[in-house]
Amino acid sequence: MANCPTHGTLITFEGGEGSGKSTQANLLATRLRTQGRSVTLTREPAGSPLGQIIKRVLDDNSIDPEPMAELLLFEAARVHNVSDVIRPALERGETVICDRFVDSSLAYQGYGRGMDPNVVREISQRAIGNLTPHLTIILDIDPKHGLARARTRSSSAASDRIGERPLEYHRRVRDGYLTLAQREPQRFFVADADQRVGPLADLIWERVRSLFAFP
Amino acid sequence: MANCPTHGTLITFEGGEGSGKSTQANLLATRLRTQGRSVTLTREPAGSPLGQIIKRVLDDNSIDPEPMAELLLFEAARVHNVSDVIRPALERGETVICDRFVDSSLAYQGYGRGMDPNVVREISQRAIGNLTPHLTIILDIDPKHGLARARTRSSSAASDRIGERPLEYHRRVRDGYLTLAQREPQRFFVADADQRVGPLADLIWERVRSLFAFP
Repeated sequence: MANCPTHGTLITFEGGEGSGKSTQANLLATRLRTQGRSVTLTREPAGSPLGQIIKRVLDDNSIDPEPMAELLLFEAARVHNVSDVIRPALERGETVICDRFVDSSLAYQGYGRGMDPNVVREISQRAIGNLTPHLTIILDIDPKHGLARARTRSSSAASDRIGERPLEYHRRVRDGYLTLAQREPQRFFVADADQRVGPLADLIWERVRSLFAFP
Repeated sequence: MANCPTHGTLITFEGGEGSGKSTQANLLATRLRTQGRSVTLTREPAGSPLGQIIKRVLDDNSIDPEPMAELLLFEAARVHNVSDVIRPALERGETVICDRFVDSSLAYQGYGRGMDPNVVREISQRAIGNLTPHLTIILDIDPKHGLARARTRSSSAASDRIGERPLEYHRRVRDGYLTLAQREPQRFFVADADQRVGPLADLIWERVRSLFAFP
């Protein structure tokens, strides 16, 4: 449950490159809207003007920030997105769907790049306060398949610096996500993302509708 | 004293806009080199490629990051500068002169923008570890004079977003610096910056030479 006094619902999508987060986040938003819910859809780190600039920094191959600098850049974008987009929408009682959130920092900078997950968690908490998603959907996929998928897309994640990191790194990220899910089984829902878009959307919908009083 | 096992000496310059930090940092570097010392001169946030981009973000008037996001951006640049420039130079036994450091975050985001200085300190420590300057020189000036001075320069700090903030903000920054200096009188040296360059440089030199075994 969200640890802040809000009336809305925060749902986050997590997963490796090419796992289909954006597609599924969009489909879920549409389905919720069809049911009459107000939905705000956002993404990290590009969900705000500051986030877009930070994304460009992170994609600039001439700069390779070490894990801590990378974490701080993502957190700066997150602060902005939380205060400008996520919290106001939650306070209006909306459902907020966020494509990547704090668990991405834990998986990528923590498990992926070897930072102590407790330090990552502590800095995140300092940055944005207590804001835990009601539901986090992990789209789980073998990084080999995910990266291959991402490479076939045009403005793909695999064409940025993070996508170019070695397979071993992406395996640690995946294992990190699964570790997080094991520790908080009530918050996380792990879905096999190596399937067609429609059936995966249905699977996610079954989990999401349990959060709401839909008929 | 620096809390890390290094052989070098870290000297930082602090102060408001137009207080003459860059000029005095340069003069001090020259004087130390004349005495045969190896000196690395760096500045925040533009001391690294990442820092230069972050400086552009901070100067972009279309984005006005809240205090926490601003702090995290400065810290990201600082992480890079500490690991790429400052620590290696200290480990080589050099004297490092840094134009702005952690005390700038305490003065600007803490005292200036109302963040809890303890939170600022904690995030800084998480970001860069324990690295306290041996000596911090505060160039103290009435913000009214400092801002007027800065505006007469071309690529002036007063032409960026921080320089454009109200006088009241710059007064809080100045008072913040003086509070910090009062709490750690051994580390800080407060110099009246409302005087000519030469005599101010001599005053600073008298304090700095006491750190070293110069004749």
